[in-house]
Amino acid sequence: MGHKVGTEHYIQYYETDQMGCCHHSNYIRFFEEARSRFFDEIGMPYAKVEKEGILSPVVAAEMEFKMPCRYSDTVIIEAELMSYSGVRFSFEYKICNKETGDICCIGKTKHCFIDDQGKVISLKRKDASMHDKMTELAGE
Amino acid sequence: MGHKVGTEHYIQYYETDQMGCCHHSNYIRFFEEARSRFFDEIGMPYAKVEKEGILSPVVAAEMEFKMPCRYSDTVIIEAELMSYSGVRFSFEYKICNKETGDICCIGKTKHCFIDDQGKVISLKRKDASMHDKMTELAGE
Amino acid sequence: MGHKVGTEHYIQYYETDQMGCCHHSNYIRFFEEARSRFFDEIGMPYAKVEKEGILSPVVAAEMEFKMPCRYSDTVIIEAELMSYSGVRFSFEYKICNKETGDICCIGKTKHCFIDDQGKVISLKRKDASMHDKMTELAGE
Amino acid sequence: MGHKVGTEHYIQYYETDQMGCCHHSNYIRFFEEARSRFFDEIGMPYAKVEKEGILSPVVAAEMEFKMPCRYSDTVIIEAELMSYSGVRFSFEYKICNKETGDICCIGKTKHCFIDDQGKVISLKRKDASMHDKMTELAGE
Repeated sequence: MGHKVGTEHYIQYYETDQMGCCHHSNYIRFFEEARSRFFDEIGMPYAKVEKEGILSPVVAAEMEFKMPCRYSDTVIIEAELMSYSGVRFSFEYKICNKETGDICCIGKTKHCFIDDQGKVISLKRKDASMHDKMTELAGE
Repeated sequence: MGHKVGTEHYIQYYETDQMGCCHHSNYIRFFEEARSRFFDEIGMPYAKVEKEGILSPVVAAEMEFKMPCRYSDTVIIEAELMSYSGVRFSFEYKICNKETGDICCIGKTKHCFIDDQGKVISLKRKDASMHDKMTELAGE
Repeated sequence: MGHKVGTEHYIQYYETDQMGCCHHSNYIRFFEEARSRFFDEIGMPYAKVEKEGILSPVVAAEMEFKMPCRYSDTVIIEAELMSYSGVRFSFEYKICNKETGDICCIGKTKHCFIDDQGKVISLKRKDASMHDKMTELAGE
Repeated sequence: MGHKVGTEHYIQYYETDQMGCCHHSNYIRFFEEARSRFFDEIGMPYAKVEKEGILSPVVAAEMEFKMPCRYSDTVIIEAELMSYSGVRFSFEYKICNKETGDICCIGKTKHCFIDDQGKVISLKRKDASMHDKMTELAGE
C-alpha cells in the first residue's frame, strides 16, 4: 500500500564473514541504504531534512534471515513506507538476490522524529509539506 | 530463567555516527559479542564448535533502541539463553550504560544449528554433551 | 600507466562518525570495492579466482586523507594496477567527490598470491592466462 | 622513546571475512582503539578534548599486515606517541597475538589539530597544558 523504493547493493568482500556469507549485521545497514534512497527519491533527502533539525532515529528493528547472500552477489533492497502518524513512521523491507530472485532477508524498522536536542517533535507542526508528503506516501 | 552472561564493550569512535551516538547497526554486533562470551564461559567456545562442523546462524533478530549510548561510554551486554529445542535456540539481550545504569537496547535473536553444507542438524545427535549442556542452561 | 578502473560509492549514514564525516576507516574498504570492480571488469572476478584456490591478501596499505566526504556524497574510487611481478602486485587509488571533483583520499595497497593453506604461490605457474593478463594490464 | 599504551581486543566473529581471518580493514580501527585508550590513560580523554572544540583527524595512515589473526584471538594493540610539533603528531602501532606473541600488524598514523570549523589550530595556544603534556610524552 505504501510507497516503495528499491536500491541495489553489491555484496563486498569486507561484508563477508568466515561462514562465507554476508554477515547478518549488514542487513540493518542495507535497510538504512534503502531508506536513504527512499527519501532522496521522494525529494526530501535525509541530509537536508537533518540540516533543518529534524532527526529520525530508529526506535525498533526486526529482521528474518531467509537465505545467505555472498560476496559479489547483487541484492535489491526494497523499502516500503508502511505507516505514518505525524510523530512516528515505519518501513518494511525485502532484500532479494538480483540474479536468483531469492529472498534473503525481510524486516521492519520503526522511527520517530526528534529535534537536535533529542525531543520528540510533531512533523506536522515542524514541516507541514513534509508531513503532507509522508501522509500521502504512507497511503493514509 | 535461562543462563545469563555479561560482557563489557567500550563504545569506540568508529562506532559513532553524525547524530553523535553509537550507530544503531552496532547493537546486533554487540549481541554477537555477548553470545561469543556466553559460549566461551560455558566451556563451549564457538570457534571450537564451528571447527566440529556445527554452525549456528542467526535466523531472526529484533531490537528496541531505548537510549543512545555515546563514544567512550562503557556498556554492559547481557545475553540470556531463553529456549533450546535440540534444533533451535534463542537469546535475549539487555544493553545497559555501565555508569548510569540506563537501558540502551533490548533484543532477541533466534538460531538454528546447521552443518557446513547448510543443512539443519539435530545437536542432540551431533554432539550429545553440548545438547545436555544447552538443555540445562536454557532451564528446560 | 597501469590499467585503471573506477567505481562509484554513495556515502551512507552508517559510514559517518560524530565529526560529521565519513569515518577514515572506510577508505580502505572503498579501495577494496574498486579492486573488486577492477577484477570484475577485466573478466577475472575475484570470487571466481578465489574458488580456484588463489587468494590475494593485502600485505600493506597506505592512505592520505585530503578532504572529508560526507553523508549522501557520491565518490568515485579509481584503482590503478601499478606493478605486477608474478608473485606480487600493487594498486594505487584516488577517491574524488563526484560533484566537486575534490580529491578526498589517495592511497596504495600491496598484495601477494597465496593458496588456501596460506603459502605464497607463483601466479605464472598456477594460472598462466591470468598471469599474462596481469602482466599486460600492469603495463609491464 | 615516546609514551606507549596498550589495550586488548578480542577478535569478534563480525570482524572475520571469508578468508577466515580478521578482515584487514579492522586494523585501522584497532589503531583508533589504542589511541582512544592512550588519551584516556594520560588523563586527556578524547571525548572531553573534542567537547573543548579540539579535533584531531587522521591525516595519513599506513600499515603492514604480517600475520592474520582470527576469531576469538585476543590481540594487544600498542600505540606509541612518536612525534608532536604543536600542530601535528604521529603514532606508531604494533598489534600482537596475545597468546603466541606473533606480530599481526604494524602501522603509523599522522594527525593534526583542527577546530570545529575544520581550521588547523595550534594546540599550544588553544590548550597550553595539553600542549605541555604532549611535548613531554612525545619525548621531545
